[in-house]
Amino acid sequence: MSPATSAAPLNGAPARMYLPIATEMEQVEETFRREMHSSYKYVDELVRYGVMLGGKRLRPALLLLTARAVGEVCPAHITLATVVEMIHTATLVHDDVLDNAATRRHLATVNARWDDEASVLLGDFLFSHAFYMTAAVDAAACRTIGRATNIVCEGELRQKGSRGCFELTEEDYYGIINAKTAELTAVCCELGARYAGASDAVATNMQSYGRELGIAFQIADDLLDFTGEEHETGKTLGTDLQQQKPTLPLIHTLNNTASAAERVAILDLLADQSPVTAILPHLDANGSLEYARQQAIAFADRAIARLESVPASPAKEVLRMLPDFAVRRSH
Amino acid sequence: MSPATSAAPLNGAPARMYLPIATEMEQVEETFRREMHSSYKYVDELVRYGVMLGGKRLRPALLLLTARAVGEVCPAHITLATVVEMIHTATLVHDDVLDNAATRRHLATVNARWDDEASVLLGDFLFSHAFYMTAAVDAAACRTIGRATNIVCEGELRQKGSRGCFELTEEDYYGIINAKTAELTAVCCELGARYAGASDAVATNMQSYGRELGIAFQIADDLLDFTGEEHETGKTLGTDLQQQKPTLPLIHTLNNTASAAERVAILDLLADQSPVTAILPHLDANGSLEYARQQAIAFADRAIARLESVPASPAKEVLRMLPDFAVRRSH
Repeated sequence: MSPATSAAPLNGAPARMYLPIATEMEQVEETFRREMHSSYKYVDELVRYGVMLGGKRLRPALLLLTARAVGEVCPAHITLATVVEMIHTATLVHDDVLDNAATRRHLATVNARWDDEASVLLGDFLFSHAFYMTAAVDAAACRTIGRATNIVCEGELRQKGSRGCFELTEEDYYGIINAKTAELTAVCCELGARYAGASDAVATNMQSYGRELGIAFQIADDLLDFTGEEHETGKTLGTDLQQQKPTLPLIHTLNNTASAAERVAILDLLADQSPVTAILPHLDANGSLEYARQQAIAFADRAIARLESVPASPAKEVLRMLPDFAVRRSH
Repeated sequence: MSPATSAAPLNGAPARMYLPIATEMEQVEETFRREMHSSYKYVDELVRYGVMLGGKRLRPALLLLTARAVGEVCPAHITLATVVEMIHTATLVHDDVLDNAATRRHLATVNARWDDEASVLLGDFLFSHAFYMTAAVDAAACRTIGRATNIVCEGELRQKGSRGCFELTEEDYYGIINAKTAELTAVCCELGARYAGASDAVATNMQSYGRELGIAFQIADDLLDFTGEEHETGKTLGTDLQQQKPTLPLIHTLNNTASAAERVAILDLLADQSPVTAILPHLDANGSLEYARQQAIAFADRAIARLESVPASPAKEVLRMLPDFAVRRSH
């Protein structure tokens, strides 16, 4: 078994040592820490806390793995990998205000430890610092990162606008998760490839890999809101339902499989803010949990197929594992 | 009387016609409107509302007037003028969430008409779109705009960290308003000059003009919180005090002029959340309102002196009037 495949690669610090990009991931951490500081004590404590709030560092890992799979990792990759994690952290910090969340990955959220105001401003600080850093690369990177971030925001707004819209179609759902999640993972892989000197064809392929991985990941993540073990996911089950956020299993049942009578019964349950345990049997009986699982697997498989455009390498091996890993979480 | 000096230039739409940059200001409005849209109805309504929320369009006017005073207005100026207004609007939208404000310039705030979540996401949308647009200019503009926005955020965080710190010094106060307000006005004038082909010396001079104008404006604005007429300013008096935000008149009284006994009495009043009418006589008796006024005038005069580096023109005439206009508001 090669070092690259001997452990789940993104699941905590020790396993990082097995990544073919372990040194570069350390450089990203160092860069993130070095950039997030202030001469003013209050600001300094807050922005340093921001560095710890990110999670699995999936996005920088994707960017660096793609770079390594295509060619060589260069200083622009370290900058851009730090930038994508900074932007992701900004969206998490703002999400936590909106969700009124108290903890994230066993750490108090900024809104819990400071307040909403500090969270909004920290998110803005992270966004603007990320854009400032990107400018050290070139204008094309600024355009790509600016555009992707804007699409992420639009996706989050679309999702917000669709709260309580239980007539949402699968197409709408895919449009939303494509924007709010897959746009950034797509851009990670595109930038990783481009700054390693990839041809347009390879860069486009890697962008598609990142997009399909992101979609697979989000379907699986949404499924966990119905079927996850709280002690494993660290999340409260049924949060999406509570927020009236329709995701794939529910959309599938309501639009594709439920009878008119069952549909009305489910909509009544939703209107009554019923717990997830009241909805789950309907989704299960309609095969919608399994349907969502299969859709996630299909996107994961499509992502893996994109890797044919790059030669065999330890980095490619990890990229091949990631979609399975993303989907397996929901099994 | 030349057209440029025949009306207060930034006070409502009809007066805009007198600006030597009237056509360009219209182009900025058109660009802002054209860029702020979405194919999704909910998002579209929200982002279009964002365009109306800005106010006096001071920042784009500064950028364009500087360009015109130094040389010719070019397409990059129109883009950058739209960008600075977009960033300013983003900070306003986020401020309104933090302040729980219901109206701004006689329009319902986004948080009042939609909710806090929509406000946070709209602000993020505006920021990211601004950075995306900047990339169409060049990497140097991205760096300048990214850096300035980051400094604005840091300044807002510093101000937040200094709530209730009534030992704040004048130096701290100037540091905060320099970051949160004057950094962006400085950058407007610097970019206006640079993209009109100014020499480094002239660009630096214009940057200082923008910075000193921004500081004069902020001192005057803070003074209005004590002495303004609510029906004229459209703002509730004493908001800063209510938020335990020390500004120049109070800092001057507490640090420079009040006796130890009076200092204790004022701190007691502040601790009791006393109304502005209870604090005002102390500031007046200590000459601190007049002191702040004189400081604002001094910065306005310094700004005006910077204009010696550009030749006479209608644009220069407006730039010469602006600092007086900013300061006169507090008389």
